[in-house]
Amino acid sequence: MNRLALAADLGGTNLRIAVIDEAGSILNRRRIETPHESGTKNFLDKLSDLALHCTKDLPSELSVEGFALAVPAVLNIGKGRIIESPNLPFLNGLDISKELQARIGLPVVLENDATAAAIGENWLGSSRGALNSICITLGTGVGGGIILEGKPLRGIDGTAGEVGHICIEPDGFACGCGSRGCLEQYASATGLAKVLSQMSHDFPDSDIPEHIGIDPKELFDHAVNGDRLALAVFERMGFALGLSIAGLVNLLNPEVVVIGGGLSASWDLFIGRLRSTMHERAFRRPAERVKIVRAELGDDAGVIGAASLIFSAEGKAAQATWKDS
Amino acid sequence: MNRLALAADLGGTNLRIAVIDEAGSILNRRRIETPHESGTKNFLDKLSDLALHCTKDLPSELSVEGFALAVPAVLNIGKGRIIESPNLPFLNGLDISKELQARIGLPVVLENDATAAAIGENWLGSSRGALNSICITLGTGVGGGIILEGKPLRGIDGTAGEVGHICIEPDGFACGCGSRGCLEQYASATGLAKVLSQMSHDFPDSDIPEHIGIDPKELFDHAVNGDRLALAVFERMGFALGLSIAGLVNLLNPEVVVIGGGLSASWDLFIGRLRSTMHERAFRRPAERVKIVRAELGDDAGVIGAASLIFSAEGKAAQATWKDS
Repeated sequence: MNRLALAADLGGTNLRIAVIDEAGSILNRRRIETPHESGTKNFLDKLSDLALHCTKDLPSELSVEGFALAVPAVLNIGKGRIIESPNLPFLNGLDISKELQARIGLPVVLENDATAAAIGENWLGSSRGALNSICITLGTGVGGGIILEGKPLRGIDGTAGEVGHICIEPDGFACGCGSRGCLEQYASATGLAKVLSQMSHDFPDSDIPEHIGIDPKELFDHAVNGDRLALAVFERMGFALGLSIAGLVNLLNPEVVVIGGGLSASWDLFIGRLRSTMHERAFRRPAERVKIVRAELGDDAGVIGAASLIFSAEGKAAQATWKDS
Repeated sequence: MNRLALAADLGGTNLRIAVIDEAGSILNRRRIETPHESGTKNFLDKLSDLALHCTKDLPSELSVEGFALAVPAVLNIGKGRIIESPNLPFLNGLDISKELQARIGLPVVLENDATAAAIGENWLGSSRGALNSICITLGTGVGGGIILEGKPLRGIDGTAGEVGHICIEPDGFACGCGSRGCLEQYASATGLAKVLSQMSHDFPDSDIPEHIGIDPKELFDHAVNGDRLALAVFERMGFALGLSIAGLVNLLNPEVVVIGGGLSASWDLFIGRLRSTMHERAFRRPAERVKIVRAELGDDAGVIGAASLIFSAEGKAAQATWKDS
């Protein structure tokens, strides 16, 4: 019999949910805008309705074994509880696994969203087969998930993996995390807008209007059309990524670094500078070893990674822990 | 019966060797200058003589189970081979475990020196009991050993843990590793000399002669006597360490960061700035969690950590692997 998992990836913008089989194939999927505004109960009701809707029309010989939820939050995975979700603060402190289990009648497992994406890429994406890998997600911010010896690195409180908040410029742009000059300030959509603004006076011949906003697609189009300012912004991004990855390579000696997220679409504009900087800055042996690759699973990495927890021993252990507590 | 291990820590300057019991107590110890100049065979002979000398007068009811050797090198631990030792290049490629076993008749296990120190502090020093810890050694350079979930982090080729080669100043001092602005350039004996030279023109009232050389003890004395230049150099060191540790805290969420090595003697001169910088730069939750502590085992951390491998399952597994190959 084919085993199935229900998996959701809760982002700041979209909530994706899917039924996924043991081979990682997606049977059903839904996507809605993340319900931010109307409180915890409404959020749980909407998510439960979506879950039930997604699972109701399955062939009767298939059974969904559990629900795995990827959340942009610090979690107590063993207790099924959200500790702190900076971008979705109405979830802070919520015993979300128990609440959802009561509504949909399935065991529920939580995972951090960046870690879920790293697990997904490690299962079926561009780091498959690697024991040691790092997944960097370039979007509104810069997220990170680390897998060492085949297991997600969580740290003692579940906050590990914040690749976006390695400092690369001690006196650089102020970061939302309270520090300055974090990687996120040079390699995310919000960061690129700041770099653009700072660099614009060096490129008076640029066609980019003074206030382009933060749309990386528009910036990408300018770069592809040869705008030197836009090209320089992506070079700066490649340098920042190369410098950070050199540090990660020296520190963790991974086999693969996977780069995903919306901004990875501008791969050709930053990868050259990323690689040259990484090789200039890291030790030769681990730098020659590591592969820098594009993510393969796109927006599905989170749900696929979460689903794998339903089929794995680790996910079962997490369920057992919070049910006992 | 009391179990015993023979353990050696091979440094660039000194070679320490000791017989250590299962409680971590040192029964016999010897220290000689590291024999650099006279080739591989002479080195192996000297080390073997020292090993036999160190073990010959033990009470007959005690037996030494194995020899653990900490080396400043990239290792193939499973094969008992030194891959690359930048500071002791005559060891490169040496099947040192087989050579030593043939000479002294004990099973031999290798460990990286910084990792051995981290294991030692984790067994009997200031990170004992911690599952996730980082050990930073401030000496001629800056070394690092990382323990995650109770196991040394080695990476895929055994090169992981290079805490000293995280970049904190992209345009900073050129580093021996080929990069620029590594932590090592601001928090090691060689680094402090550069920082001193750079800062000296800002402190014309300093009593420090223009070319003080690289003796950190002398710099320490000037600082204790209130010399503002010397104090500023140690503040700069604290800032560099705080910035790097903030990144490590965001990335790995450890319980303890242990700081050892000769330069940790100037603890009071850098720890204030280190802590304030770490709290300004890291996420609140992991920053509040982590303890920053001084190493407790001093120069014995390496031999104690190495000895523990003889008593542990991991060490036995490594011996089994290279014997089979």
